[in-house]
Amino acid sequence: MKKIINDPHQVVPEMVNGMVRSYPQIIEKIPNTEAVVRADKDSMKGKVGIVSGGGSGHEPTHAGYVGKGMLSAAVCGQVFTSPTPDQIYEAIKAVNQGNGVYLVVKNYSGDVMNFDMAKDLAAMDDIEVKSIVVDDDIAVENSLYTQGRRGVAGTIFMHKILGAAAQEGASLDEIDKLAHEVLPNIKTIAVALSAATNPEVGKPGFVLKDDEIEFGVGIHSEPGYRREKIKPSKELVDELIDKLDDEMHLSSDKKYACLVNGMGATPLMEQYIFANDVYNKLENFNIKPVFTKVGNYMTSIDMAGISLTLFEIKDDKWLEALNEPVETIGW
Amino acid sequence: MKKIINDPHQVVPEMVNGMVRSYPQIIEKIPNTEAVVRADKDSMKGKVGIVSGGGSGHEPTHAGYVGKGMLSAAVCGQVFTSPTPDQIYEAIKAVNQGNGVYLVVKNYSGDVMNFDMAKDLAAMDDIEVKSIVVDDDIAVENSLYTQGRRGVAGTIFMHKILGAAAQEGASLDEIDKLAHEVLPNIKTIAVALSAATNPEVGKPGFVLKDDEIEFGVGIHSEPGYRREKIKPSKELVDELIDKLDDEMHLSSDKKYACLVNGMGATPLMEQYIFANDVYNKLENFNIKPVFTKVGNYMTSIDMAGISLTLFEIKDDKWLEALNEPVETIGW
Repeated sequence: MKKIINDPHQVVPEMVNGMVRSYPQIIEKIPNTEAVVRADKDSMKGKVGIVSGGGSGHEPTHAGYVGKGMLSAAVCGQVFTSPTPDQIYEAIKAVNQGNGVYLVVKNYSGDVMNFDMAKDLAAMDDIEVKSIVVDDDIAVENSLYTQGRRGVAGTIFMHKILGAAAQEGASLDEIDKLAHEVLPNIKTIAVALSAATNPEVGKPGFVLKDDEIEFGVGIHSEPGYRREKIKPSKELVDELIDKLDDEMHLSSDKKYACLVNGMGATPLMEQYIFANDVYNKLENFNIKPVFTKVGNYMTSIDMAGISLTLFEIKDDKWLEALNEPVETIGW
Repeated sequence: MKKIINDPHQVVPEMVNGMVRSYPQIIEKIPNTEAVVRADKDSMKGKVGIVSGGGSGHEPTHAGYVGKGMLSAAVCGQVFTSPTPDQIYEAIKAVNQGNGVYLVVKNYSGDVMNFDMAKDLAAMDDIEVKSIVVDDDIAVENSLYTQGRRGVAGTIFMHKILGAAAQEGASLDEIDKLAHEVLPNIKTIAVALSAATNPEVGKPGFVLKDDEIEFGVGIHSEPGYRREKIKPSKELVDELIDKLDDEMHLSSDKKYACLVNGMGATPLMEQYIFANDVYNKLENFNIKPVFTKVGNYMTSIDMAGISLTLFEIKDDKWLEALNEPVETIGW
């Protein structure tokens, strides 16, 4: 393992310190936690708080999406490890304005359990909390750390849509309704060229041959559904979009947002080439996405690979929400 | 070589297509070139045009900095290869509003020559063009492709400062004066864990051992000044800041902007840990940077490594310029 770190067991506190010290105008640490909250407290006044989080290693997720118009706070667990309920609860308290707090949880058993326990802690203090569990990864039905489907890059669309609604003053019930309307329309699938190396583990989660890729890998090196020799970008895109089409029934009558997401070690050069192939392939369906983003949004430390998310925009307000300006590090 | 591409000889056109199709609201292609220009033409009206460019492989540089408040156009050469004079000249013509055009060139012999030739072409058409050559890399005095010092990540500070000035209506002479005032105050130095693989070459520019790093590497895998075993982040930071101090004479009486730049394959986790060490080390000088950025801004395809740029802010207007909002993909 060759990494620019100090102590493998201190990567999260040092990383979170680096993040808040780099962008003090946007985020600050919640004392005695590895959670961050909006520095601009005024923007939270009278609004529902939106809290997300999970294991670290997916930067800029989640702390990079804290800021006006998006998340109110994010809880940074150890690398690939759920944050503890007490830390989540500190974040809930830090953003609570008396109007309730909404939790966006990626579907991993540890996260679901710990966010639920934090919700119970909040209930004892009469803070109303609701939540959504994002399970956008269509690759496999159950996985190493998940019952059902995994939550991956599409989660940031959820963050953005709910963050915009909260900023506009939506109530907790309205946000919960919106989250459940949006959820089934976000679908993601990935391909990996190499696995991530968790600094505390010291070696990659799996090893692919020099000419091998794996379809459907998760963001913690969970297995996908097939290994084979690498193919040209456009053939990768063919397979991934066909899989998404099976789920979503792509149609030129519908509107889509599209996220091409680098896994951490994949250069933008490859991401843009892949994106170009995505737009070509979508043209076969007479689809031109109405919103697109390309970059490292939901990474897996130093994994090489790309995920593709399509989000069917069923309501033009969702598109407006995606286009609302925000003040965050990562969006 | 395992990369998500199609034809190694088509990476630049496919990448540029991917970029403009992803962000059509910000940039568009200049017909018959691999250069991009602001989609928002109105924001250029009556202003000096700012054009930059160079070899591809440094994404989001340069096209990612085209947009209101920053560059007017960027010319994308082949990978690690200077764009041709005719392509640069097309960009000059595309942004020319009759008030002159300013070129920001990184100090590589090919770039300097070709941008100069484009300037001559423009002169024949009575377009007034001036330019600056950025040479911020303090690692070595001459290099593989450079007389003098190389131009690297600090170039994006130049883009930002000049872009803000142009947007405010500064004249060509004022921009030229500003560029020359700013230039000597931007200094960069890097450390690499692995070299970039140019898709057309198919193998990395150099090979380091599993526990080895190289100080002072350039953004085209040019040699640095020392190879040795990897050290903790804070020891890397010690050496890099001491080198910058030798050049800049760091002082708590001065103000600094700070850019921690990932080289393409370095996760944000490592970049934030490194940044945290940078702020700690600067505290020894009683310095707290007044402006900070951390991320992949000037990459070298899939190189793993980090560069550190310090920019001494001698005029508070420069800080205002850094903080001006822009509409770009990459800033």
